[in-house]
Amino acid sequence: MRAAIVGASGYAGGELLRLLLSHPEIEIGALTAKSSAGTALGAHQPHLAPLADRILLDTTADALTGHDLVFLALPHGQSAAVAEQLGPDTLVVDCGADFRLSDPAAWDHFYGGVHAGTWPYGLPELPGQRDRLRGTSRIAVPGCFPTAVTLAMFPAFAAGLVEPDVVVVAATGTSGAGKSLKPNLLGSEVMGSVSAYGVGGVHRHIPEMEQNLSPLAGEPVKVSFTPMLAPMSRGILATCTAPARADLTSQALREAYEIATKDEPFLRLLPQGQQPATSMTLGANTAVLQVALDERAGRVVVVIALDNLTKGTAGGAIQSANLALGLSEDLGLPLNGVAP
Amino acid sequence: MRAAIVGASGYAGGELLRLLLSHPEIEIGALTAKSSAGTALGAHQPHLAPLADRILLDTTADALTGHDLVFLALPHGQSAAVAEQLGPDTLVVDCGADFRLSDPAAWDHFYGGVHAGTWPYGLPELPGQRDRLRGTSRIAVPGCFPTAVTLAMFPAFAAGLVEPDVVVVAATGTSGAGKSLKPNLLGSEVMGSVSAYGVGGVHRHIPEMEQNLSPLAGEPVKVSFTPMLAPMSRGILATCTAPARADLTSQALREAYEIATKDEPFLRLLPQGQQPATSMTLGANTAVLQVALDERAGRVVVVIALDNLTKGTAGGAIQSANLALGLSEDLGLPLNGVAP
Amino acid sequence: MRAAIVGASGYAGGELLRLLLSHPEIEIGALTAKSSAGTALGAHQPHLAPLADRILLDTTADALTGHDLVFLALPHGQSAAVAEQLGPDTLVVDCGADFRLSDPAAWDHFYGGVHAGTWPYGLPELPGQRDRLRGTSRIAVPGCFPTAVTLAMFPAFAAGLVEPDVVVVAATGTSGAGKSLKPNLLGSEVMGSVSAYGVGGVHRHIPEMEQNLSPLAGEPVKVSFTPMLAPMSRGILATCTAPARADLTSQALREAYEIATKDEPFLRLLPQGQQPATSMTLGANTAVLQVALDERAGRVVVVIALDNLTKGTAGGAIQSANLALGLSEDLGLPLNGVAP
Amino acid sequence: MRAAIVGASGYAGGELLRLLLSHPEIEIGALTAKSSAGTALGAHQPHLAPLADRILLDTTADALTGHDLVFLALPHGQSAAVAEQLGPDTLVVDCGADFRLSDPAAWDHFYGGVHAGTWPYGLPELPGQRDRLRGTSRIAVPGCFPTAVTLAMFPAFAAGLVEPDVVVVAATGTSGAGKSLKPNLLGSEVMGSVSAYGVGGVHRHIPEMEQNLSPLAGEPVKVSFTPMLAPMSRGILATCTAPARADLTSQALREAYEIATKDEPFLRLLPQGQQPATSMTLGANTAVLQVALDERAGRVVVVIALDNLTKGTAGGAIQSANLALGLSEDLGLPLNGVAP
Repeated sequence: MRAAIVGASGYAGGELLRLLLSHPEIEIGALTAKSSAGTALGAHQPHLAPLADRILLDTTADALTGHDLVFLALPHGQSAAVAEQLGPDTLVVDCGADFRLSDPAAWDHFYGGVHAGTWPYGLPELPGQRDRLRGTSRIAVPGCFPTAVTLAMFPAFAAGLVEPDVVVVAATGTSGAGKSLKPNLLGSEVMGSVSAYGVGGVHRHIPEMEQNLSPLAGEPVKVSFTPMLAPMSRGILATCTAPARADLTSQALREAYEIATKDEPFLRLLPQGQQPATSMTLGANTAVLQVALDERAGRVVVVIALDNLTKGTAGGAIQSANLALGLSEDLGLPLNGVAP
Repeated sequence: MRAAIVGASGYAGGELLRLLLSHPEIEIGALTAKSSAGTALGAHQPHLAPLADRILLDTTADALTGHDLVFLALPHGQSAAVAEQLGPDTLVVDCGADFRLSDPAAWDHFYGGVHAGTWPYGLPELPGQRDRLRGTSRIAVPGCFPTAVTLAMFPAFAAGLVEPDVVVVAATGTSGAGKSLKPNLLGSEVMGSVSAYGVGGVHRHIPEMEQNLSPLAGEPVKVSFTPMLAPMSRGILATCTAPARADLTSQALREAYEIATKDEPFLRLLPQGQQPATSMTLGANTAVLQVALDERAGRVVVVIALDNLTKGTAGGAIQSANLALGLSEDLGLPLNGVAP
Repeated sequence: MRAAIVGASGYAGGELLRLLLSHPEIEIGALTAKSSAGTALGAHQPHLAPLADRILLDTTADALTGHDLVFLALPHGQSAAVAEQLGPDTLVVDCGADFRLSDPAAWDHFYGGVHAGTWPYGLPELPGQRDRLRGTSRIAVPGCFPTAVTLAMFPAFAAGLVEPDVVVVAATGTSGAGKSLKPNLLGSEVMGSVSAYGVGGVHRHIPEMEQNLSPLAGEPVKVSFTPMLAPMSRGILATCTAPARADLTSQALREAYEIATKDEPFLRLLPQGQQPATSMTLGANTAVLQVALDERAGRVVVVIALDNLTKGTAGGAIQSANLALGLSEDLGLPLNGVAP
Repeated sequence: MRAAIVGASGYAGGELLRLLLSHPEIEIGALTAKSSAGTALGAHQPHLAPLADRILLDTTADALTGHDLVFLALPHGQSAAVAEQLGPDTLVVDCGADFRLSDPAAWDHFYGGVHAGTWPYGLPELPGQRDRLRGTSRIAVPGCFPTAVTLAMFPAFAAGLVEPDVVVVAATGTSGAGKSLKPNLLGSEVMGSVSAYGVGGVHRHIPEMEQNLSPLAGEPVKVSFTPMLAPMSRGILATCTAPARADLTSQALREAYEIATKDEPFLRLLPQGQQPATSMTLGANTAVLQVALDERAGRVVVVIALDNLTKGTAGGAIQSANLALGLSEDLGLPLNGVAP
């Protein structure tokens, strides 16, 4: 099978290419870009030695013809125009936000503008979701923070262990903001500093978290979410906490997480006493978790680490694409981080 | 006035010395250490050029004689033995935890062992506390995280704006863990990685946060606290959130914080739209804050940044010592961070 | 005395302001900028709490009137137009390259365009230079790399210990490149990575190094210089090596450096066995050095660390300005780094 | 084929395991350690999810029996005692220094103690070396810095383009120093700082560089080498320079490097104008180079980037092992870096 990458000069596009280079069943086809069209990929992704001489094309219907899959790695709002040029026998995997939300009002509140629609949501670990992805021809890849928060909290909600009032604070590496040339993303600004952004419940990933968890809770889940930018290129560490239901014990909590994760190829509940670190997952499609009951405060605390570009974007996209294509879900996806 | 530093080879000791070198009224006297006694300070604090040739002494009563102030920068549990050799006309400023907690049961639960006692708590910004510090001869310097959380939340509790159910997630630089030779503190492990620790309500700073906030709330405040280690040497960024009381408006919240901070020399409420970053406070005794009301989630969110070694330890210690000595509270303390 | 800062929104401008805030004899006057004129300084230099509300002005003759000093912190080529509006009783301190080189051919080769002229060179430690700076009304502040290389090598050339064939490789923090929005300066690119640039003898600071060292050598000195960008915001670590003259001994080398540095307030020759680190000098006007004779290779090796924004730019500028104004050379300049 | 790893808890051991997990022909057998024997690998290498539950064994002859290959990842001086327990039909690959040097006097000068002997040197790119590695049963893996310097300079010496007087300055990530618990390797010390070490021609890797290059030069090559520690976990960026032979042109230099690298699977000469960065090679077995002629200074400048743990240690070890085992040299070795 042959895949085109739209937006191949960016960080998500680069990670898709890095992973696809090791994928045994998917061949890399056209690479397209916007302002970088006409230049060699090596100028933008110098770490991808085997593809250095590939020339970026304009994103046209012609360029995308003849591919079994098309990955879209575009800024929000630009996916629909490309997707509508692609027929139903092409698998389209959108790494952007455009087709993630089912509620047009939530789209309007957080993104504004026209809601493009809703595609099958590419998070196989979400209960019931794996089956919806098999054979689909359209996939909306989850946001990186919603991936982290949903993977951290679905076991607790699915087992009815917590109240629907979640507080999340998550640190992310700078690649989550893409290659945009903003002063606050300069190395001089981010090195040696942790900063807050999106404070006060305004981050666009919030409705997606609530959309994922509410059906499991059987009632609306409220998420208070505050991100912070940490001095690292990759990685998310999210601390997720919610009030424990009465009588919850540490043992019952641990068991619920053991059950929920034991058959998941990319979820790893750490042994008790070991805490997640983003370095455990650098470049891997693995998410590592730890869970604890804070009896004094009456809260369940779940900490999760993953690589925002791998499990949080490109790896998750390929995992869902594998399902859609009838391949083994874990095909071509690294389990190991690169550390130290 | 002449100050001795006990524990001059460590990070807190080094920061005390850096600040005292610019203090117009305090002269640096004896420097003592344990295993490093007999070596030159320059081997341990090579950034302190003017003191490089000073020899570290053993921590004996003789070495400490003849000083108006003694700063203790020791591991937990070692301060009492030194302090009891120092008379009531010597100001003793303990940067450790030994004399912070008033509740022996809290000490026993979180630290274990004998509770050394309770000294006036060195956080001048805590309502009513400034007066208790004037003229005192003993000061318990707050922990770095309790400093951050208390400064972030005291305005909300003092004004009755939030419920007593606080969730805090805070990132800290590695200097907070001191110079201890632990594998997880090696540069290879911490660079490029954010990791969790103390998950599940077990961090020793929790009872101190609750002790500070409960009197303001007029009822017991519960704090769920999760720290994480970020790849930077210095700095704390804490996100603190609590349920908003009914009818709280953004404007009322902002006003409460403006009133609470406007006369504080070391608290800076950022303009709306600007978010705290630890780099704003590197090496400064300043804490910067931002506050927001998340109406969807019904929570107040306060983000605070400070330097764990300066405002969070050594700067806070000198600020309180200034009060105890009858000096201007801000004497010799830097307002500006070193950035970028 | 009152100082205006032209280019107050950039990194050099910010460091000038940080240092001047502690200067006992210089008051901060007008702050000017180009595209940021009309905005508050706090949006650009949020670490400078006391100046946060100051509004940036356009750089006009009017704005600069009534100041005893004007610091220019502008991109190369823009200083002359501002300087010519300022009379001879105003001290003008140019942090740019425009007036550093005495040889128009060197200017043309490395910078191109019109050579603006030559001003007294602001490196007091260069033998003979201190006297040239007293009472001057124009100062060309050295480049950050030439500062490092000249301070490292002047003792060896002045004492005739080495051949005039220098090889320098220097790592710099990203602030040396200013706040320019270039993809290679993004945090995602620089964190976790050291990269080369200016390879092959093309860096613009080379003729300045040769101009400084050749008169001491009494013959033309050739410098092979390769910079690299390191994942830190501030700091230069330069390794400088040249063939040792016959019969040079380690002891004679060490003595020459001891003599050359012992009366210099901002040069610190480390004890034998201790090596320079940029953290020793962060935020300080101090440069730390170590020197060794590699007998096998027949070369003198000098390693120097300094802060590119402090001793390498703004601190060096103020040090020279102090001399020009008849003040004590070290007035208001920090000797200590901020570490860890 | 089945491989044992001796020293599996360290950084080199971890990288060997990470790479072997993707190797199609080598199965991971016994994992041994010293002080960590009896503990689970997951406590030391938490990024290697699939091996987390493997228990570390003592390094005994029994534990190593039944393996086709044994990788030794031990501190210097400990390899011989293990190797002598292994027969000639076991391939022994030593990542330590013990068997690299052929000159006992050089060993004595730089390492001291008994010289263990000399094994075939595992750098296939060194002219003539590839054939010596096919079918061998003992391999001495090069040091990380000698790998970088030799790969950078062999084309120049093999083509007779430079004088035998090399100056090298190289930045390395902290993993090069291993997991040793030394204060200068703490995150607080290394973050935000570049520091020098081994100044003055004392680094143990120097004789190995000279041993590699002298035969190509046909005369003794002198290397002046100064390493520096950079704030990153992985990576080496080495700047290598030597006087150009008379009449050398940029074009001839470029051509020599194109010829020398074009058939090498793991050497990548960057297009003109693009400079090496260590991030291009993170986790990859690739080294990237750039070369330039500095006509003013009369020197050839070569800059090379590689990952000290991959191409510089574990990847290089597997590359040579592939040759020894009759496999394709590049089997199981990643060509792509993980970036950003």
